[in-house]
Amino acid sequence: MEKLEQLYEGKAKKVFKTEDPNEFIIAYKDDATAFNGEKKGSIMGKGVINNKMTELIFTMLAEKGIPTHFIKLLSDSEQLVKAVTIFPLEVIIRNTAAGSVCKRLGLEEGKKLKTPIFEFCYKNDDFGDPMINDSHIIAMELATAKEIETIRDMTYKINDILKPYFFEKGINLIDFKIEFGKTNDGQIVLADEISPDTCRFWDVNTNEKLDKDRFRRDLGNVEGAYVEMLKRVQS
Amino acid sequence: MEKLEQLYEGKAKKVFKTEDPNEFIIAYKDDATAFNGEKKGSIMGKGVINNKMTELIFTMLAEKGIPTHFIKLLSDSEQLVKAVTIFPLEVIIRNTAAGSVCKRLGLEEGKKLKTPIFEFCYKNDDFGDPMINDSHIIAMELATAKEIETIRDMTYKINDILKPYFFEKGINLIDFKIEFGKTNDGQIVLADEISPDTCRFWDVNTNEKLDKDRFRRDLGNVEGAYVEMLKRVQS
Ligand SMILES: Nc1ncnc2c1ncn2[C@@H]1O[C@H](COP(=O)(O)OP(=O)(O)O)[C@@H](O)[C@H]1O
Ligand SMILES: Nc1ncnc2c1ncn2[C@@H]1O[C@H](COP(=O)(O)OP(=O)(O)O)[C@@H](O)[C@H]1O
Ligand SMILES: [Mg+2]
Ligand SMILES: [Mg+2]
Repeated sequence: MEKLEQLYEGKAKKVFKTEDPNEFIIAYKDDATAFNGEKKGSIMGKGVINNKMTELIFTMLAEKGIPTHFIKLLSDSEQLVKAVTIFPLEVIIRNTAAGSVCKRLGLEEGKKLKTPIFEFCYKNDDFGDPMINDSHIIAMELATAKEIETIRDMTYKINDILKPYFFEKGINLIDFKIEFGKTNDGQIVLADEISPDTCRFWDVNTNEKLDKDRFRRDLGNVEGAYVEMLKRVQS
Repeated sequence: MEKLEQLYEGKAKKVFKTEDPNEFIIAYKDDATAFNGEKKGSIMGKGVINNKMTELIFTMLAEKGIPTHFIKLLSDSEQLVKAVTIFPLEVIIRNTAAGSVCKRLGLEEGKKLKTPIFEFCYKNDDFGDPMINDSHIIAMELATAKEIETIRDMTYKINDILKPYFFEKGINLIDFKIEFGKTNDGQIVLADEISPDTCRFWDVNTNEKLDKDRFRRDLGNVEGAYVEMLKRVQS
């Protein structure tokens, strides 16, 4: 399968058409951004790691009944996926309070939540991915009530799979952001990626951060954290 | 019924104990604030108007089956209400996009929404009343899932009553904010006020704003707008 026309270059990946209208190629980059693009940099080896980690996690999720866009790896930094129309939604689950939600609501960073927080954000860089709810999504026609229900159910199910999966690897899954898309034949599938770019991973014993917060907060050893996380997932 | 100890002085009202532990007195003030207290001023006659308007609207809502905290007027600027524990939630319905939601999501001011937007905000001045959703409310234990359902259902019902009620008076109900409380015997009731401080009212023919936006945006004739709205409600 060969890359044809580039459809989109995002902050962390490029998306290419292929000769099959139902399949795209995603090329993972080392570029890293934070705070809606205000902070820019590069994390050596990130593209290869996130490509591989997404393969492993999406394959595991598919085995547990979650439909995903993943088809197969094509190279160290590229994967073949189902072409989808992405819902312009960032779907977030928080098991432990960290990051923006602490500042916004006065929650203590590291406080385990009694029940997960589930958030939709409107995926739109011009507006800084603002938080929205079902009624905004329906009024703005970003998804139907039925699609929202499917997405919410799948997200909670994914959290229920990922939490113990990572815990066995000595990782507390603090929070994560996922995206969903609709294939050409109308199926809603998990799309995009699951990686240290899109999750908060804390070591169970030391609480060491093994994710993009090392880049966001200049904590050092960013590359090492990504390498360590891939090792854990492969273990 | 006499005012005893002052329990709370808010931005627009004072709350007093009475000798009956199930009843409070609310005294409406002329003070006006906007943008989370950044802008301060006074609107002559507002206390009297909002006290009266809340009486009329809460009485009408009660007749249509909405339980409220309102008991009776005590004076031009005071009313007797059921003592409640307020849920720290601002409950908002938007029928037409206006104000903060336009900036936040890029909606055009004055655009009638296909379906109403329903928002919960965490009533907390220190954090600027941030928007939250059911999962935050449950995780933060601000209300239970069942209480949220009651509050949401009552709010949509209130909107369905208020929209035609105001339309008959030549007013488009653009949006409004309400609060709910729990009485000492556990009933959830509509509390606080419904007034030009807490709603956006636009004249049906001219789109003239007849609400607190005249104060927020320095549009002039603020007092006149409040007087006009009371006249419409009394008509
Ligand atoms: N299967 C897919 N089909 C089409 N687009 C996808 C698919 N999976 C992910 N995408 C989109 O491709 C882009 C990935 O690039 P990324 O660098 O993460 O972009 P962004 O900066 O917009 O988040 C995202 O906009 C994402 O929504
Ligand atoms: N029936 C009631 N019992 C107790 N408190 C109430 C009742 N109705 C309204 N309140 C509360 O009284 C205060 C009213 O004053 P206001 O000036 O509007 O305050 P704020 O600046 O906090 O909005 C609010 O905090 C409101 O939640
Ligand atoms: Mg992305
Ligand atoms: Mg108030």
